[in-house]
Amino acid sequence: MGTGSSGSAPRPRSRRPLPEVSVLRVGHRPGRDPRLTTHLALAARALGATRLYLNPPDEAIRERLAKVTADWGGTFSVVPSPEWRSVVRSHDGPVVHLTMYGLPLDPLLPKLRRAPRVLIVVGGAKVPADLYGLATHNVAIGHQPHSEVAALAVILDRIRGPPGPERFRGARRRVVPTARGKRVRRGGRVPP
Amino acid sequence: MGTGSSGSAPRPRSRRPLPEVSVLRVGHRPGRDPRLTTHLALAARALGATRLYLNPPDEAIRERLAKVTADWGGTFSVVPSPEWRSVVRSHDGPVVHLTMYGLPLDPLLPKLRRAPRVLIVVGGAKVPADLYGLATHNVAIGHQPHSEVAALAVILDRIRGPPGPERFRGARRRVVPTARGKRVRRGGRVPP
Repeated sequence: MGTGSSGSAPRPRSRRPLPEVSVLRVGHRPGRDPRLTTHLALAARALGATRLYLNPPDEAIRERLAKVTADWGGTFSVVPSPEWRSVVRSHDGPVVHLTMYGLPLDPLLPKLRRAPRVLIVVGGAKVPADLYGLATHNVAIGHQPHSEVAALAVILDRIRGPPGPERFRGARRRVVPTARGKRVRRGGRVPP
Repeated sequence: MGTGSSGSAPRPRSRRPLPEVSVLRVGHRPGRDPRLTTHLALAARALGATRLYLNPPDEAIRERLAKVTADWGGTFSVVPSPEWRSVVRSHDGPVVHLTMYGLPLDPLLPKLRRAPRVLIVVGGAKVPADLYGLATHNVAIGHQPHSEVAALAVILDRIRGPPGPERFRGARRRVVPTARGKRVRRGGRVPP
């Protein structure tokens, strides 16, 4: 109780700054995947990622997330990425490709938590074969058919833990946590 | 190192048996949500839930998951649930409704891990107002607009940790974890 790692909260608690995490979605299908990629982007933002590189670009999703960030705070952005390979190659730090065929996450976690910048790559329906070679690590969140949204959520939660309110500065709306029902406080910058 | 909780693996490690977790999806829209609810079901299965109560029922999703379970093992099932309230009322244990308006998860975790059976309720686009009252706990995985797939993944990972291979007995296919590429072993019951 009150002594650092409480036992009840299974998350990283080092004093070292948490890594900056970017997410790259490869092979988004603008016509078919709008809701799924929106969920991926919302999960990335809510769990503390800094940005989502979106390949191929999708202006509707970029705008939707820009609106969420304007309302709910923080600096998360969707970066249109016509060339996913150049995002991977120019990343300065470990590149973690999530795949059910990869190695388990746990042994890698301490290293990822020490990295200043981590890029997590999430494939779509078809994953380009060279991604397995370009990634620093091919990592599985369980070796079962899965949801990429769920796998991303688990790895973000394990690397960074739940983001604090400082992650969402400048919000126009804030939830007031409550046992029953919904409470939202409006305020701060420019009320809607 | 080697003394119980290793520090690198942020997950529950008690000797007590893990709770049996069921998931209830309320307000699925069979025409609109097939991929999203499929992801929800896959995430529930891959992260160790026992079943998904699906309201309203959707035969296509039930069949898809039955096929995944036949191929990849275990006993996960999708249970058609025309009456979600009776699923909640007849559940013998804590009912946790995931909502961005709820209270934080962490203080509740030790209690949930001690429960024999936990029901996690995931709303769709519109959540019936009485759900907030019928649930034992309204819980937020972060107070930000989110993905229900991501929120479910985080709470399952925190309550149960990653499922071991004993969770997926009788599989026809198994991944052989590998650093690069894909390896799947076929075998066991009835080869395809």
